[in-house]
Amino acid sequence: MQAINWKTTARDGNARTGVIQTRRSVIETPVFMPVGTLGTVKGERFEWLESEIDARIILGNTYHLWIRPGTDVITVLGGLHRFSGWNRALLTDSGGFQVFSLSELRRIGEEGVEFRSHLDGAKLFMSPEISMDIQAVLGSEIVMAFDECPPGDLGKEEIKTSVDLTVRWAQRSKDRFEELQAGGSDLGRVSFETSDLSGKQALFGIVQGGGHLDLRKESLERTVEIGFDGYAIGGLSVGEEKDVMYGVLGDLAPQMPESEPRYLMGVGTPEDILEAVSHGVDMFDCVLPTRNGRTGGAFTSNGDLNIRNATFRDDPSPLDENCKCSVCRRHSRAYIRHLYTAKEMLGPILISHHNLAYYLGLMADIRTAIREQRFSAFRAEVLAHRSAG
Amino acid sequence: MQAINWKTTARDGNARTGVIQTRRSVIETPVFMPVGTLGTVKGERFEWLESEIDARIILGNTYHLWIRPGTDVITVLGGLHRFSGWNRALLTDSGGFQVFSLSELRRIGEEGVEFRSHLDGAKLFMSPEISMDIQAVLGSEIVMAFDECPPGDLGKEEIKTSVDLTVRWAQRSKDRFEELQAGGSDLGRVSFETSDLSGKQALFGIVQGGGHLDLRKESLERTVEIGFDGYAIGGLSVGEEKDVMYGVLGDLAPQMPESEPRYLMGVGTPEDILEAVSHGVDMFDCVLPTRNGRTGGAFTSNGDLNIRNATFRDDPSPLDENCKCSVCRRHSRAYIRHLYTAKEMLGPILISHHNLAYYLGLMADIRTAIREQRFSAFRAEVLAHRSAG
Repeated sequence: MQAINWKTTARDGNARTGVIQTRRSVIETPVFMPVGTLGTVKGERFEWLESEIDARIILGNTYHLWIRPGTDVITVLGGLHRFSGWNRALLTDSGGFQVFSLSELRRIGEEGVEFRSHLDGAKLFMSPEISMDIQAVLGSEIVMAFDECPPGDLGKEEIKTSVDLTVRWAQRSKDRFEELQAGGSDLGRVSFETSDLSGKQALFGIVQGGGHLDLRKESLERTVEIGFDGYAIGGLSVGEEKDVMYGVLGDLAPQMPESEPRYLMGVGTPEDILEAVSHGVDMFDCVLPTRNGRTGGAFTSNGDLNIRNATFRDDPSPLDENCKCSVCRRHSRAYIRHLYTAKEMLGPILISHHNLAYYLGLMADIRTAIREQRFSAFRAEVLAHRSAG
Repeated sequence: MQAINWKTTARDGNARTGVIQTRRSVIETPVFMPVGTLGTVKGERFEWLESEIDARIILGNTYHLWIRPGTDVITVLGGLHRFSGWNRALLTDSGGFQVFSLSELRRIGEEGVEFRSHLDGAKLFMSPEISMDIQAVLGSEIVMAFDECPPGDLGKEEIKTSVDLTVRWAQRSKDRFEELQAGGSDLGRVSFETSDLSGKQALFGIVQGGGHLDLRKESLERTVEIGFDGYAIGGLSVGEEKDVMYGVLGDLAPQMPESEPRYLMGVGTPEDILEAVSHGVDMFDCVLPTRNGRTGGAFTSNGDLNIRNATFRDDPSPLDENCKCSVCRRHSRAYIRHLYTAKEMLGPILISHHNLAYYLGLMADIRTAIREQRFSAFRAEVLAHRSAG
């Protein structure tokens, strides 16, 4: 029995819809997963994520949760689901990206990475095994292998070295993961009386290789050889030019196994998502809806706006006139701008909520368009409206 | 026809239950009104206030809304209801308390008060007429007369002088208010096809007099003589000893007109509210549930706690084991403490919500106890549990 079941339900060019059945929720793809770094999607109550947004899966962050509140606390509480109160599916990233992007003074060796906490400078060590141990405590439905995330400006030689290390770490991630699953260490375990799922965690491998198509291909092949429940594209949207990212996506995504979900990590704008979907990517996560929401940035069908702009001071219209979310049905731009200006918490709360509603609404529309074999036209229409606004 | 209808529905000693019918919602008393200073109850979406908390009326603040976003913006949007999206009843305070507590360099004259904005130091002038003008733009269901709020440490002579001024300002408030109502200036106006309400705003007078029972009595009599739709007790909980406040409440509240609602402004703890209800007060507002919520303070049936306390680090129990609110049904103290420690917005959001649920739940229990003629026993029980916790 498998940890997750994935099946394709429709195709339109390389774009596809599917369903991921996990032990905690059923996820329609292409899916956008709101980011809950510290066990909370910033500014959102779970009740809204469940009811209006209908998020079936959110992210948790191994690095951040390891530092705060720490695995000791989460162990006592019985895993991240019980700790946080989120009962639908969780995907936890491996901590790799944060170790390489947030911490200073890191020293990478074969065994793992020595680094200092971004909070208090404490010396820490992370390895594939430690990442798997933490993710077993978190008890997520989907675990990510521990990878090296090299800076975007490395030479090809160094990226090749990094890909080699990531492959070795992927194997070690899988080995430790399987031990943990066999030992029942996963705190998120649920038992199904009647199910074709194993009740265990699933493990995804991560493809690296920077902007080099040959290294990407090699990384993919060697990762697939190890064998995972799904495959992710890492190391994109880390400062490279758009055409490099789109080049990798166009080449790599269609080569990824048909029979497992494809996940583009940490990406991106609505435009990026539409591009990636066109090449067959199924899963996305990004901090943009909530991060921009906190600084007044709203995504809309007519292009993006920042509510701090003085033109909205007495604007009675909603953030997005085509949006049916609870924020747009009720509140004017003038009111939300006032909340921002007055530094009221409700400002970030409302825009973040609208942005998540926009993103998950977009994904639902994408799925419908693929099912109806009109994804290209749909995409062109969305892009046209967003750039004309 | 009246602007509001008030009727008593039960009595138990001096405590009483009643119903205030306003043009926008029906309010059961004793009632606690969440404070929405700037047109938002801090950290709460209106949807929660309506559904789970079932707040029938919230406060808005004339002083704050006058400064931000300004009456020009609120006029364009069509009043505070339409501006904010809150469609139930609003009570607006007159700005008096804020002029006297927040601003510096104030100069009080017969005409009004000259002061500087607490935000940018701009010179401003507030008078009874200006307060009424602003409250007509806000379009609240209940308007408060503009009063002088002297510091608690004034001598009796000076308090007497202040009471005299407040009475003259009350008359001027009423005169201007009636002009505005007659001229249809109130932006919150709604028309009822079938109703026994006028559709206009209601105006409450404010009783001052510090801790002096004779001045309180004089202030009450002269305010009642002018004639208002309800009467408020101002100038309590401003730094005086508890027994002074309770002394004034015990003496003053039962003397207030039976036939109108009695409102204790800006008070207070659950203990204060139980005391005031025992003397026949019907309406309350206070920033405590949301202000304490933002700094980690939770009100519970077993006494108050601060979630930042290290003992809650791995505590799986809810904030209040006797609470049925959505926060207590779902989230542990350990999780909420983690949110606080990590400075996540959701921490203040969750505790503020629980605190409001606690306060409005307490008011519902108070109403039930009065109806069942067991208010004294109920009060003793609440106090015993809260002090034993």
